[in-house]
Amino acid sequence: MNILIIYAHPEPRSLNGSLKDIAVAHLESAGHRVQVSDLYAMQWKAQIDAADTLAPLRGEHFDASLDSQYAFAHGMQSEDIAREQEKLIQADAVIFQFPLWWFSMPAILKGWIDRVYAYGFAYGVGEHNDRHWGDRYGEGRMAGKRAMLVVTTGGWESHYGPRGINGPIDDILFPIQHGMLHYPGFDVLPPLVIYRTGRIDEQRFAAHRRELIQRLDNLFHTAPLPFRKQNAGEYKIPELTLRDGVKDGEVGFGVHLMG
Amino acid sequence: MNILIIYAHPEPRSLNGSLKDIAVAHLESAGHRVQVSDLYAMQWKAQIDAADTLAPLRGEHFDASLDSQYAFAHGMQSEDIAREQEKLIQADAVIFQFPLWWFSMPAILKGWIDRVYAYGFAYGVGEHNDRHWGDRYGEGRMAGKRAMLVVTTGGWESHYGPRGINGPIDDILFPIQHGMLHYPGFDVLPPLVIYRTGRIDEQRFAAHRRELIQRLDNLFHTAPLPFRKQNAGEYKIPELTLRDGVKDGEVGFGVHLMG
Repeated sequence: MNILIIYAHPEPRSLNGSLKDIAVAHLESAGHRVQVSDLYAMQWKAQIDAADTLAPLRGEHFDASLDSQYAFAHGMQSEDIAREQEKLIQADAVIFQFPLWWFSMPAILKGWIDRVYAYGFAYGVGEHNDRHWGDRYGEGRMAGKRAMLVVTTGGWESHYGPRGINGPIDDILFPIQHGMLHYPGFDVLPPLVIYRTGRIDEQRFAAHRRELIQRLDNLFHTAPLPFRKQNAGEYKIPELTLRDGVKDGEVGFGVHLMG
Repeated sequence: MNILIIYAHPEPRSLNGSLKDIAVAHLESAGHRVQVSDLYAMQWKAQIDAADTLAPLRGEHFDASLDSQYAFAHGMQSEDIAREQEKLIQADAVIFQFPLWWFSMPAILKGWIDRVYAYGFAYGVGEHNDRHWGDRYGEGRMAGKRAMLVVTTGGWESHYGPRGINGPIDDILFPIQHGMLHYPGFDVLPPLVIYRTGRIDEQRFAAHRRELIQRLDNLFHTAPLPFRKQNAGEYKIPELTLRDGVKDGEVGFGVHLMG
């Protein structure tokens, strides 16, 4: 299969660098074709701006949505953006690997999402009517592809537990897993999270290596997180709130998972 | 008072640009001293890397935490970082204004957090012992200062409601308000969120302008969000999970607010 790794860490000789190298070697030895977008090595431009479109601006001033829509539709995007979109289209599975900085992804990776996820490519796709509000949240250009986060953090696992001070890791990752991955259609696998990276000795490293390899071996077999599909009848349209009868009286991120 | 606006939008002639100009003019007319970090205009560098320290690397390879710690402690940070830290130190209140892109902040603003929030400045501050786990989550260098988000989004308010498909806006903003603002010690005010920005006519613009001005007039009077303090006895140390007797049986982001 074709596997794309989007990798965001400044230093190759780091825990993240080692894990990425292990993943590439293991996937290739298993017969997969692997591509890596090493964002730091590529000196990926993080900020969306008017240079992202090679077309004249559509209006009197730059509009991140409308200008990206026109550039995407007319093949006039900045080449670095078009190249990443092509890698996504070719991929059967995409791994996003990064250190959790300030409870989110590093800026350089957010800039990959902001720029590669053009209007017409990752959002603004499909019809909007009273039964179907665009191809999103379970439908869209990434439908049929799998995505998985590999995340490292200096914090302790208990700090990210159900009653931990940082908030539960699943909730911290929800804007990414649901908002950036399920939204354009990916099937999102449970994340691999490695805690307390300041205290990794050989024994722990070996255990994380084993777990990573196991996850990679099961990349096409693991059950995805059961995020609900927007247009499958469980949400009112266009309010996009859960219908009565679905998790009545419950609120929050958790209601958007089945079961 | 000294008010700092951290502003992240690529286009001055936009809703965000107008709101920022209104804020600056209104705050100055009220007698405040206003500084604006217009990240796009400053061409703010988003990615953390070895160029952020002017000192020799501490180890054999770049370590974002340890090298930022040394550079901060020894006055050897990249000048753009030191300048933003100085603005923060001078500020009595900080407004972060940005469009919500993919359920988070634009990359250029995340890069401001990643780089300006150096080890020793915004984290890794204070003693760690069995009663006090660093000056964070309610203590820290930003203690006594106020922070407020001003956020725009194309989505509808119902999409961000308690049962809305994007998840509740308070939960989406939790990693920012709790994780990036309460963490280094800010008192965090309720956010001003402007929805459905694609459909703003003169009447709605006037209403948003009035609300923004009202929020600014109350910047030093509004009650902050009641996030719990880490070292006030409600969390076990070092597990940093809520003690028995505090919101027993409850989990999730909401347990970290009092009441």
